[in-house]
Amino acid sequence: MLKRIERLLRQGCGIEPGALLIAGVSGGPDSLCLLHVLQALGHRLIVAHFDHQLRPGSAEDAAHVAKIAAAQGLAFVAGRGDVAAFSSSKRMSVEGAGRSLRYAFLFAQARAHGAIAVAVGHTADDQAETILMHLLRGSGLAGLAGMRPRVVLPDLDGSSPIVRPLLEVQRQETLEYCRLHDLRALHDASNESREYLRNRVRLELIPSLEAYNPQVRQALVRLSNSAAEDLVLIEDILAQAWKRTLMDQGRDYLGFDAARFATEAPALQRRLVMRASLQLQPGIELDFDGLRRAEGFISDPSSRRLQLGEELMLVRESGTIYIALGEQHLPSDKWPQLPAESVGLGRGAAATVALAGNWQFTSELADRESDAAGQAPAQDPYRGRLDADSLPSQLELRAPRSGDRIKPLGLQGHTQKLSDVFINIGVPERLRARWPVLASGDDVVWIPGFRIAEPFRVRKETRRTVLVAVYRRG
Amino acid sequence: MLKRIERLLRQGCGIEPGALLIAGVSGGPDSLCLLHVLQALGHRLIVAHFDHQLRPGSAEDAAHVAKIAAAQGLAFVAGRGDVAAFSSSKRMSVEGAGRSLRYAFLFAQARAHGAIAVAVGHTADDQAETILMHLLRGSGLAGLAGMRPRVVLPDLDGSSPIVRPLLEVQRQETLEYCRLHDLRALHDASNESREYLRNRVRLELIPSLEAYNPQVRQALVRLSNSAAEDLVLIEDILAQAWKRTLMDQGRDYLGFDAARFATEAPALQRRLVMRASLQLQPGIELDFDGLRRAEGFISDPSSRRLQLGEELMLVRESGTIYIALGEQHLPSDKWPQLPAESVGLGRGAAATVALAGNWQFTSELADRESDAAGQAPAQDPYRGRLDADSLPSQLELRAPRSGDRIKPLGLQGHTQKLSDVFINIGVPERLRARWPVLASGDDVVWIPGFRIAEPFRVRKETRRTVLVAVYRRG
Repeated sequence: MLKRIERLLRQGCGIEPGALLIAGVSGGPDSLCLLHVLQALGHRLIVAHFDHQLRPGSAEDAAHVAKIAAAQGLAFVAGRGDVAAFSSSKRMSVEGAGRSLRYAFLFAQARAHGAIAVAVGHTADDQAETILMHLLRGSGLAGLAGMRPRVVLPDLDGSSPIVRPLLEVQRQETLEYCRLHDLRALHDASNESREYLRNRVRLELIPSLEAYNPQVRQALVRLSNSAAEDLVLIEDILAQAWKRTLMDQGRDYLGFDAARFATEAPALQRRLVMRASLQLQPGIELDFDGLRRAEGFISDPSSRRLQLGEELMLVRESGTIYIALGEQHLPSDKWPQLPAESVGLGRGAAATVALAGNWQFTSELADRESDAAGQAPAQDPYRGRLDADSLPSQLELRAPRSGDRIKPLGLQGHTQKLSDVFINIGVPERLRARWPVLASGDDVVWIPGFRIAEPFRVRKETRRTVLVAVYRRG
Repeated sequence: MLKRIERLLRQGCGIEPGALLIAGVSGGPDSLCLLHVLQALGHRLIVAHFDHQLRPGSAEDAAHVAKIAAAQGLAFVAGRGDVAAFSSSKRMSVEGAGRSLRYAFLFAQARAHGAIAVAVGHTADDQAETILMHLLRGSGLAGLAGMRPRVVLPDLDGSSPIVRPLLEVQRQETLEYCRLHDLRALHDASNESREYLRNRVRLELIPSLEAYNPQVRQALVRLSNSAAEDLVLIEDILAQAWKRTLMDQGRDYLGFDAARFATEAPALQRRLVMRASLQLQPGIELDFDGLRRAEGFISDPSSRRLQLGEELMLVRESGTIYIALGEQHLPSDKWPQLPAESVGLGRGAAATVALAGNWQFTSELADRESDAAGQAPAQDPYRGRLDADSLPSQLELRAPRSGDRIKPLGLQGHTQKLSDVFINIGVPERLRARWPVLASGDDVVWIPGFRIAEPFRVRKETRRTVLVAVYRRG
């Protein structure tokens, strides 16, 4: 057993002999065995006991652990917290609250004493129970991997790794070890309480599964090890896919190449969404159905918007799928936006107007060119050529008004609603209110990104033209 | 429900409307529902019933199914087999024997009628039971994936795919469907028998798990779907790793680059060993411990040989790890081997001897070169330069003899046993008996792959040298 623990400590936990560890010790057989074994293997230890104050007399447990630490010549630190009160104030389960407070104490001790890790006494039996609990609740690969020998938990401070040197040891072995080394373990009556799911799993479910396969605990532990290894492989592919698909990111959004995203395997799509969501909102829990809906969204090019959480959403905008905390946080500097409701251009033909972000509007006077290029709609919808003499004298760049219409060049004088134009050219809804429109009062002259209006087109008799352009600098 | 089935048929099973299917129909509610739904969705069907002859009166079931088929205007075929007898003659479980005979019948019908698939009525409940059985027995990702909507099973004929259109439908829904459409399902009393593991799982284990989570069946089905998707990702990485590491293959062996193999992730190493083993010996079952030992073998450069099955073994030979059905099948053409016990070289210095495979030995006379390169051991251990006048007149290429020793060049006249030389230069044991040795009687002159002997070295006074070489042609 010592050999197995030593190997796991080095290979699985990454701990070399002589390292200073905080040992979390409840006083039960597992943690007493942990303590004794770690000392036997030459590690430096500080014994840390946390009093959950859930039972009268819990303070005596602390005294007992202190005595054991003293007998082994080890430093001892004690902490305590009102777990019941914390649980009800945070609306957490008692187990969750206990875990939260206990680890906060252990990590604080690790920091205070410069320990390189917090060691806890979870055994292979705890592992089997954990995996069963995950299975019952519904779980994918990560849940089946269960507890790992070394882990950093960002949701629990996470300044030190937690290591679990006994994870390949059976609980029965720790009991025998304690008997052999005359370690008097505390009996925790709450371990028998059927109130806690873990206890029911241990006392009722596992024995009933052993009727089907007496080795079921070992089978579950093996499953957890192989799931953990599979997970490493998948994390590796995920990192590659992330690199392939991620185009753009900000504090509150991540933008993915929509076409690439759609060609990734479904399992990768789900994982990319999950990773992005966790990056934007650490700790968020996405259920399987939400991920399925995200998959549907990704594969459907006509999808626009999918709410995944209170704030979290998917948004599709011209070739990009954003995962974002609300649409208002999406980047707007990819598109031209007015800095204010409207900007007058003055009387001259030459003008430069700074738009939001790095965008800019310019207009300049030019002689009639010899070719007839001006007749056709401009190749680049963000550039236009107008007949200078047809233009009204007062132009402005202004926001779209409800009811705005344009007579687009080439449409034989038919008019089109601006709202339809925006849909046609794929301007994201959130950006329509500040889309720059070149106009004179109600007369729309040019919609950047679309076309100029027919009445201001370059004609045979045109002598001077005005070139207008909207572009991003740099 | 019809919509769900239709989608799964197209997307999961790859079946388009109008296709001819063999429907495996026991007469229970699931298979009657399958039959009715497939017809409603416009598929052409042949109803196939297999009589397992495990109960008196089982022939009446066939008649009942025939009547239902006739009522729906469908062709009907019946088969039967003595499952109990087959089970005891093959030492299989009754369930396994029934499955084997039933599918053999269904596949034969598919071939006979040109059907594109065999459809069976497994439901989401069957799926949950399957996954639980795999979990109980001990399983990795593949077992957790459970039954897939479309699968080809090489161990069961496998000439047609099996499709499972009801895999997302609850058993309760098929019961309601039958009631709604007035389909009289047969009651199979053996479904209640606690003799069969599946029945105990359905009747006892699942209800007891539902006490922990009423949605546990759905959780298991979701797990199976996500495991199946993860598996696709991993198969993809596996294919890449296979390409990276596989160097050489024959009918009874696969040779992998040992250094690359050792750098693959453990989960990939296991899967590579599994895939190689299945390729060499289809149907072989490797247990987890065997795979763990294989991992240890791969990571230990001093490992030589590991028996994994009755014939299956891992062998390490100078940079290659072979997975093979016995060492005798490993390729020998990578090394020089004598075609016979010995070959005389005649009296002249010039000789060419064909060795086994494409190998060849040559010797030729050369004038003393001006430089002193001949003094040092040859750079290429498969080439040697000897003093022509020191050589005995009668040379031969012969097999090593027990007790053979050589005085290697540069070892100040010390002698070395040939057996030690072979270990030092890493000649696989199986190839030592036919390793070519240049000698005259008991005097060893040169060991190809090692060195020439001191007494035959090129000296200051050497006038003529003999160049010897062993090499692979082409």
